[in-house]
Amino acid sequence: MARWEPNASERLAVAALELFAERGYENTTVVEIAERAGLTKSTFFRHFPDKREVLFGGDTMSNLVDKGIAAAPDGATPLEAVAHALDTIGREAFRADRREFGARRRAVIAANPELREREALKGLRLIDSMIEALTRRGVPALAASVAAELGALAWSIAYERWSDPANHEEFGDLASRTLDEVRATTASLA
Amino acid sequence: MARWEPNASERLAVAALELFAERGYENTTVVEIAERAGLTKSTFFRHFPDKREVLFGGDTMSNLVDKGIAAAPDGATPLEAVAHALDTIGREAFRADRREFGARRRAVIAANPELREREALKGLRLIDSMIEALTRRGVPALAASVAAELGALAWSIAYERWSDPANHEEFGDLASRTLDEVRATTASLA
Repeated sequence: MARWEPNASERLAVAALELFAERGYENTTVVEIAERAGLTKSTFFRHFPDKREVLFGGDTMSNLVDKGIAAAPDGATPLEAVAHALDTIGREAFRADRREFGARRRAVIAANPELREREALKGLRLIDSMIEALTRRGVPALAASVAAELGALAWSIAYERWSDPANHEEFGDLASRTLDEVRATTASLA
Repeated sequence: MARWEPNASERLAVAALELFAERGYENTTVVEIAERAGLTKSTFFRHFPDKREVLFGGDTMSNLVDKGIAAAPDGATPLEAVAHALDTIGREAFRADRREFGARRRAVIAANPELREREALKGLRLIDSMIEALTRRGVPALAASVAAELGALAWSIAYERWSDPANHEEFGDLASRTLDEVRATTASLA
């Protein structure tokens, strides 16, 4: 039972989203999600600690943020390093073939208070990941916090734009332009 | 049973914090919290929708944010309006006699994943309240979002500093200075 399943995490997320939309989050069990994905309950719990987490990818996003900031060029400013992380996420997670999934995922989360609560917590964790990765590049604590908050704001606006079915741009391009808008607005405020 | 109880919300929060510290969040019931506060379960539910919410004051903070931003002088910039809200919160909620409660509250929340999750959601709601109140002042959407995010960051740093028992400054002063630091750091990034 402990064999490695290719894309198990993604299959579980797609199955969960289908079931949540069909019968509601409350009326769906982990066993049913695993069955729909053709996997076992124990495989589910190797990937996610609980039912809520299945739409949030476990540590995937935190790891991508970490990798993206670490891989930014040496002379990159804190906001350039954050832009590099957003670009990494666009290439490795929010690909064009995931856009429709993203739109349905947003609708399911918006309809459920427990999922909205988990989303809020994941947002804070992503900000923490950005802060830690920026700190490892030598960015001072407060500058790392500010850059991470602005990056998270750009991320959330860009994700909303990207998961709109009428949109055809790549996430990385949208995120880069959104971060530029956030930066310009910030400069006018500060 | 439906009579008005002076400070019921505050008494319930103090009772809940004692019980969570004594026997743990999971092992405390709403009935026990109400009893410790000398109130009834129905009074509890008139103030809070569930057990988690008792440490988060229901809509109190959102209402103070709203009031503080609305009451800022006419010519105030978005960040000045946010500073006015933080000052209002210092005068009406985070008073000197609440500092010790604040420190114990922070410790209990940090120890419990469910409370951390609620705290994350409340943080987002406060940001939404700031955005809405700024928008009503005519601030454009993106500028309102950026000002709210920077205000929330200053708030959380200032609250951490204020709830340190070794600190003797008023919340409003700490928040104002922290917001200045955040603004200066932001200017250097953007």
